Amino acid sequence: MKLGMIGLGKMGFNLVVNLLGHGHEVVVSDINPQRGEQLAGLGAQPASSIEELVMKLEHPRIIWIMVPAGAVVDNVIDKLSGLLEAGDIIIEGGNSHYKDSVERAEKLKERGIHFFDTGTSGGTSGAEYGACFMVGGNQEVFTAVEPLFRDLAVDRGYLYAGESGSGHFLKMIHNGIEYGMMQSIAEGFELLEKSSFDFNFEDVARLWSNGSVIRGWLMELAQNAFAKDPQLAGIRGVMQSSGEGKWTVQTALDLQASTPVIALSLLMRYRSLEEDTFHGKVVAALRNEFGGHAVVQES
Amino acid sequence: MKLGMIGLGKMGFNLVVNLLGHGHEVVVSDINPQRGEQLAGLGAQPASSIEELVMKLEHPRIIWIMVPAGAVVDNVIDKLSGLLEAGDIIIEGGNSHYKDSVERAEKLKERGIHFFDTGTSGGTSGAEYGACFMVGGNQEVFTAVEPLFRDLAVDRGYLYAGESGSGHFLKMIHNGIEYGMMQSIAEGFELLEKSSFDFNFEDVARLWSNGSVIRGWLMELAQNAFAKDPQLAGIRGVMQSSGEGKWTVQTALDLQASTPVIALSLLMRYRSLEEDTFHGKVVAALRNEFGGHAVVQES
Repeated sequence: MKLGMIGLGKMGFNLVVNLLGHGHEVVVSDINPQRGEQLAGLGAQPASSIEELVMKLEHPRIIWIMVPAGAVVDNVIDKLSGLLEAGDIIIEGGNSHYKDSVERAEKLKERGIHFFDTGTSGGTSGAEYGACFMVGGNQEVFTAVEPLFRDLAVDRGYLYAGESGSGHFLKMIHNGIEYGMMQSIAEGFELLEKSSFDFNFEDVARLWSNGSVIRGWLMELAQNAFAKDPQLAGIRGVMQSSGEGKWTVQTALDLQASTPVIALSLLMRYRSLEEDTFHGKVVAALRNEFGGHAVVQES
Repeated sequence: MKLGMIGLGKMGFNLVVNLLGHGHEVVVSDINPQRGEQLAGLGAQPASSIEELVMKLEHPRIIWIMVPAGAVVDNVIDKLSGLLEAGDIIIEGGNSHYKDSVERAEKLKERGIHFFDTGTSGGTSGAEYGACFMVGGNQEVFTAVEPLFRDLAVDRGYLYAGESGSGHFLKMIHNGIEYGMMQSIAEGFELLEKSSFDFNFEDVARLWSNGSVIRGWLMELAQNAFAKDPQLAGIRGVMQSSGEGKWTVQTALDLQASTPVIALSLLMRYRSLEEDTFHGKVVAALRNEFGGHAVVQES
């Protein structure tokens, strides 16, 4: 099939490599033209602008957007909206909020443009060698783009999830689960590290990746990390987040759903961003006030 | 190799099947003689008592104990202690507390008997087809029993973990991680269930088992569960626990280790055991006292 790819970052670039490997024709565009030139060497057709990209595709066009979530997605969609015709298809594969995807789908529907909100999982290696896709949008139109997902995904690694928004909703929840799983695994190793036993963490992670109940890709990644740095001595325990865990907890509040472990995993990430906390100061001050307990002075 | 197996419950029975399949000679004993007779049909040698089991083995004997953790383990070890000779080997494969294992190893060492505390993971299917073992004890003597673990485990599925206690310590932490991972996965499906989208949970679990970041055996088990009962309508959300999560949290307290998500996963299990809570009554009463907020009356 022939399609356009807008956004050639780590994910978009690797998806194009994956698509080309499956014999698809891909017209590519990125704000950094070097990315497109690199892909041209692999058989992609670079376009110097979104206008040119649209011109190089024939109606009904399929355009995959893989740009950072938020305003950039809106900018690209707004531009595309003026260039595309009824019957054209946009696949938006970034980490967008599902409510934004519902709105975008509705707006594009007014112009007859089909929109698929697509959650993508599996990391950059997944993008290149086989990822996992959660797709929301019109079920009948989905059959037109399904061959792309079949080729890009691992076996059984894509799902038509339901109406618009459901793809990004699933991806959001997937990431929320990921927060809790990662924090659980990490707390386990915290206990091993503090114990009096002398465990080799790489060996433990390898063992737990083979035959245990908690085996899975995250444990294999832990094994890789400990292989590179046995005590993770070169890494500070600062746990960034990119929004989807927060959205999951916000959704839990909206739905009044009891999800304390995912929520706490997010809050532990926030805690890790601060060298010291104001709540810590307050507790220390109160212990001092009522019991004369010594405080640690700011140096 | 030739060894004895004491305890032919779900795990012990399947381990014997696994051992026989690998050509080992196994003398078996259980308080329920029918279990041994069943295994005799597969080639095991049943013994009607621990004394008989010991007599049917030649020095240096290898005896695997697979009985419920706690007093039963002590009873079996006490009995064996009077029957075995210096140089004999006991493998204890149940979910014992690692501190008990340290004590048992020390006591048996006085009589020259080697003791391996062995955490076993992978469930009953793992016991039969390939499990995951974490073994603590004397490293040199371990080489004598290593062929058994190599045969019983999946590829790379066993680890000599260190001195006595380290095997069961690792298994305890493994189970603590499992609590957190299970609660995280479960909270994710809680959000899917409460959302306005109409997800097929089996499809979602299958998708997330293929190519996603959160893929792993627990997600595959979720898929199996939803395949049997799409809404889990036949299952109440009562989450029992068998001790190792509690021990993990107790260990975290001992080590002053920050492991809030594992701790909370355990507390959520306790919450699930109660239809109503006293803390719920207290909060409702206080809201009523200060704000006149209505309470739900006991019927």
